[in-house]
Amino acid sequence: MNHPQTFRDLHHGDGPLLLPNAWDFASGAALAEAGFPAVGTTSLGVAAAAGKSDATGDARDETVALARSLARLPVPVTVDIEGGFSAGVSDVAGLATELASYGIAGVNLEDGRSDGTLAPLDHQTALIAAVKRAAPQVFLNARTDTFWLAEGKPDMDETLRRVRAFAEAGADGVFVPGITADDDVRAVVDAVDVPLNVLFTPGRTDVARLADLGVRRVSTGSLLFRKALQAAVASALDVTGATAEAPAFSYGDVQALVAR
Amino acid sequence: MNHPQTFRDLHHGDGPLLLPNAWDFASGAALAEAGFPAVGTTSLGVAAAAGKSDATGDARDETVALARSLARLPVPVTVDIEGGFSAGVSDVAGLATELASYGIAGVNLEDGRSDGTLAPLDHQTALIAAVKRAAPQVFLNARTDTFWLAEGKPDMDETLRRVRAFAEAGADGVFVPGITADDDVRAVVDAVDVPLNVLFTPGRTDVARLADLGVRRVSTGSLLFRKALQAAVASALDVTGATAEAPAFSYGDVQALVAR
Repeated sequence: MNHPQTFRDLHHGDGPLLLPNAWDFASGAALAEAGFPAVGTTSLGVAAAAGKSDATGDARDETVALARSLARLPVPVTVDIEGGFSAGVSDVAGLATELASYGIAGVNLEDGRSDGTLAPLDHQTALIAAVKRAAPQVFLNARTDTFWLAEGKPDMDETLRRVRAFAEAGADGVFVPGITADDDVRAVVDAVDVPLNVLFTPGRTDVARLADLGVRRVSTGSLLFRKALQAAVASALDVTGATAEAPAFSYGDVQALVAR
Repeated sequence: MNHPQTFRDLHHGDGPLLLPNAWDFASGAALAEAGFPAVGTTSLGVAAAAGKSDATGDARDETVALARSLARLPVPVTVDIEGGFSAGVSDVAGLATELASYGIAGVNLEDGRSDGTLAPLDHQTALIAAVKRAAPQVFLNARTDTFWLAEGKPDMDETLRRVRAFAEAGADGVFVPGITADDDVRAVVDAVDVPLNVLFTPGRTDVARLADLGVRRVSTGSLLFRKALQAAVASALDVTGATAEAPAFSYGDVQALVAR
């Protein structure tokens, strides 16, 4: 099976590709079995499962090991590689080559850094170009964290500048987690020829509306991992006869769990 | 903090120790944060997370890595080491020594084998004695799979013979997963001086009743892991607008997921 081509095609189906994100082999296999045509990974989940913080570049080994195991699923797999786990362009290109050799169909590469800043645009476009040269068949979803890291109103000019530069550098898709307003989504769709990926937020995301706006991929990020964690705690509390509900886990809650 | 002593004492509190079982660092940390005084691991979850089958002895490396990370939790941790991941008594003793060096407070050692048979009793008692010699401070919970692997009516005579032999060989506690009938539970409690651990089954286990019968520890086995998996699939199906409920995962379902 040609997973990279299948994965590429899934961005051009009738509706947006609904992409669930796994954090270990079992969750990936369960999602594939549930009928999802492709599976992604969540770097928060992968890092936290290993007791590490997300977006710090510390979970490279775990990410590669997971990618290797998920590659045996019958569906295409795309891997969240954070910012590439290295500031070195050739390191990141080497990682993409390695993942491609396992049959991985796509990668996510983000410009947000653990200190809350964005990578310089020329560094990020150099990374994107290097990854595409190293593994041209791999679908490179280039993520900008302009919304994710914004304190206050996100900078749409910077967002558009970045997604345009990412697409020009060879990105196969762009991802703007945190973008929600119709006008913002439409502006990004209009700005680039490549598919736009947005994040699903329970109770707030209307997939049909996003489809109308031209979104081609909706992913769950760390949601499934956080829901799984909540369900585990809820089941454990049931044993004790506790009547209190298990707490929901936010992204920050999970980061705090591993920081202790 | 002296985790092994604390863990030992938890078997002699007012009620049975309610022990939730984690499969990765995040689940363990979340359970500790939820207030559980100790955390165990589930070999099914640890193996499946890595894409491996349970009870085959294949997940030794993942188990050790997880134990190392869980050892930093503020509560005692006990580790499910299947049958010891080796037929060699000195290998298993070495594993116990290694886990003790990380500060692990307990281990579970089972006599069930992946081919559905029970290990010969003299082999199992030799293992137990060797582990206790190697790591005397570690709480050794010796599990017999007489009920777990029974086709038809479990053999109570064999169960009692095994738990007595385990306790005599130095086990700090005995574990009979699958035992439920009051008379059976009482017979095991009466047979040995060490704490009896039984498995929690939602809707069927009455913790207060077990406490009256003399059970000192109730653990969740793979339940939390399987509930987490179900919650992840359910959350993913929500995104698609599917109205079908996410399937529950049995032990066998999880083993089938990784066998593909």
